Amino acid sequence: MTSPQRAPGGFPVVGIIGGGQLARMCQPPAVGLSITLSVLAESADSCAALVIPSASVGDCTDVEAVRAFARQCDVVTFDPGRVPAGVLATLEADGVVLHPSPALLVLAQDQIALRRRLTAIGVACRPWAQVLDAASLQAFGDQVGWPVIVKAPRGGYAGAGVRVVSTPQEVADWFDDAARDAARDAGGDQKGDGPLVEGLLAEQQVSFVRELALLVVRSPSGQAGAWPIVQTVHTGSGGTQVLAPAPGLDPRLAAVATQEGLRIAGELGVTGVMAVEMFEVTDPATGEPAYLVNELTMRPHSSGHWSIDGAVTGQFEQHLRAVLDLPLGETSARAPWTVMGSVTGGDYPQLYPAYRHLLARDPGLKIHLYGRDVRAGRTIGHVSVSGPDLDDLRARATHATDFLQGVITQ
Amino acid sequence: MTSPQRAPGGFPVVGIIGGGQLARMCQPPAVGLSITLSVLAESADSCAALVIPSASVGDCTDVEAVRAFARQCDVVTFDPGRVPAGVLATLEADGVVLHPSPALLVLAQDQIALRRRLTAIGVACRPWAQVLDAASLQAFGDQVGWPVIVKAPRGGYAGAGVRVVSTPQEVADWFDDAARDAARDAGGDQKGDGPLVEGLLAEQQVSFVRELALLVVRSPSGQAGAWPIVQTVHTGSGGTQVLAPAPGLDPRLAAVATQEGLRIAGELGVTGVMAVEMFEVTDPATGEPAYLVNELTMRPHSSGHWSIDGAVTGQFEQHLRAVLDLPLGETSARAPWTVMGSVTGGDYPQLYPAYRHLLARDPGLKIHLYGRDVRAGRTIGHVSVSGPDLDDLRARATHATDFLQGVITQ
Repeated sequence: MTSPQRAPGGFPVVGIIGGGQLARMCQPPAVGLSITLSVLAESADSCAALVIPSASVGDCTDVEAVRAFARQCDVVTFDPGRVPAGVLATLEADGVVLHPSPALLVLAQDQIALRRRLTAIGVACRPWAQVLDAASLQAFGDQVGWPVIVKAPRGGYAGAGVRVVSTPQEVADWFDDAARDAARDAGGDQKGDGPLVEGLLAEQQVSFVRELALLVVRSPSGQAGAWPIVQTVHTGSGGTQVLAPAPGLDPRLAAVATQEGLRIAGELGVTGVMAVEMFEVTDPATGEPAYLVNELTMRPHSSGHWSIDGAVTGQFEQHLRAVLDLPLGETSARAPWTVMGSVTGGDYPQLYPAYRHLLARDPGLKIHLYGRDVRAGRTIGHVSVSGPDLDDLRARATHATDFLQGVITQ
Repeated sequence: MTSPQRAPGGFPVVGIIGGGQLARMCQPPAVGLSITLSVLAESADSCAALVIPSASVGDCTDVEAVRAFARQCDVVTFDPGRVPAGVLATLEADGVVLHPSPALLVLAQDQIALRRRLTAIGVACRPWAQVLDAASLQAFGDQVGWPVIVKAPRGGYAGAGVRVVSTPQEVADWFDDAARDAARDAGGDQKGDGPLVEGLLAEQQVSFVRELALLVVRSPSGQAGAWPIVQTVHTGSGGTQVLAPAPGLDPRLAAVATQEGLRIAGELGVTGVMAVEMFEVTDPATGEPAYLVNELTMRPHSSGHWSIDGAVTGQFEQHLRAVLDLPLGETSARAPWTVMGSVTGGDYPQLYPAYRHLLARDPGLKIHLYGRDVRAGRTIGHVSVSGPDLDDLRARATHATDFLQGVITQ
């Protein structure tokens, strides 16, 4: 266990459970803020451990390792989708300051629990149902119209564990508990303690105009802020492109959705950064633009990576400020437009020559690589470009991500 | 000796001799660029060692320590004002890739050698002379007019070892070698190998309009770039405020001075970032604005700190790109104005509460603290603010630096 070395002057240590890119990207703002980071990393070559001196190797399911780690920190933050509830309960009993609150874990880890809570507080979501068997799914589909979307409640991470079905038979296997557990395990890196809510989540498939994302932040003392709403575009190469701000967004819709995001953060007691993914829809009654909330992620999120270079305060700096209950920073954009493109692993295991070429081609491009081995489909970095001409920025971001992925070679 | 852990994908290791704030501020851009830094630090709690995993403790005058350190790096960079020539010669003989070139050391460490070289390549400087005795100083002063500025050639760091004198008697002590060595030692943290050039530097005291600084960068393959010229203002509290760009600067003067800075970098063979400090003067013949070069610093420099938040590519990212011979980044400003204020140690040894207050007062302020113990007069950080209203930015930067220094308390 490496002991974190504090900066002189009374500055705190923030512990981060998990040594992935989210911890890694906290380091640049932590340097300026003079905040010491300490990471509990999966391995010594975890990408955060490459850039943070105080990195301990330990598994987030190993309660004693996590306790020993937490004792050295003033506050501990983590991805609530990935840390077991039992571990967090132990830390809480030890008096460790945890953000976000472990009470939010069930909402972060279980889609049905989240839908139930959002509905209870009056948040606009797609019609949904908890379906325990084929008959209840049949009834839901008959009511809202087929096909419907079915999710293994704890397996919906990154699109796995999601099916669009036209009959209950297409998820018959999931109604078998054992099979559903397998589907859940296939759904990502979840390390939970078994199902929290029984059954599957069924949702109406709605037609939407586009996907939006709102990034909000809230501190323990209740200060809150929101960045401009962005548009998320899924690209052909399996990545996403984020346009900040969302072009042509109706100002009334932007204001209402932002208020709603801040209200959700307050109602749930979120601390730190939270991403609210939404669909922009057309209200069938009025023909006006409206939104439906789709997902909440209670940590810095890829839809907020544009803010690192594109906003006065980036999401990682803001997350550090929030979990320390420091005053929050300004969230306004620093340029008319910023476009962020995610980079997934492609044809360049030796990425350095490709990156060198790209730096030469676009001197205004900001490249953020995560220090991870290149594997097909794995997110290995992102790029962003800011400026006055959205079409130009989109073309440059697309070129850069395609090039780093080997989709194009010049 | 901690062995640096490379990021996968063929990314390089940049070694930095010296664990101060210049090395520290390379870490944030290195994270995004996936470049591993390795630092040879003065002590385990050097401010760069707090934020860079691969930090070895060793003295830059210990040739074997420096050699062992350099062997683990793809390229080594350093402050040419501080590393002994003999150590660099050994590294060069070992085949270590060094930037800037050790050949520039004499220019970085000796003011007379620098003036001689600048004059030889036709750079506009104040009239100057190498004075070996009182008689030659008397002759120079009689020629250019008294008072004149006299500098111990290797002691002029940060204003120490500089006197404005009206008679040669006022530096009689410096004409005694032993006394001059003492003056040189008092002049900063120089760790040289004895005097390079005999005598003292005498310069005409010219009246100038203001102080300007130009930051340029040049790569080993000859690519070069320059940021907008800035104005440097000395503040009452012993620090400096930098206005980027220099307000109202004559565009012709800006163009000519920028070209000259790039020419100097090329003529001298500078690699990495170099700051050119200048005086803006009025040409007595034409009445037009003109410049005189005052100082060159062959490393990232405080006059360039504004670029971290205020330019598309900050000086530390650019320095890393340059020493690796990577393509350089765009140097344009990201806002109409950026104001940088240096923070010197004042009344808050426990700086955290003061910083907390300041974050609350100005959510748009970017604070960069260097993780150093607060001592009176020591530079412990800087702040910057960007936006459209220069007066507003200057007031905010002044408040922030005054507050962090304890000059004001609210």
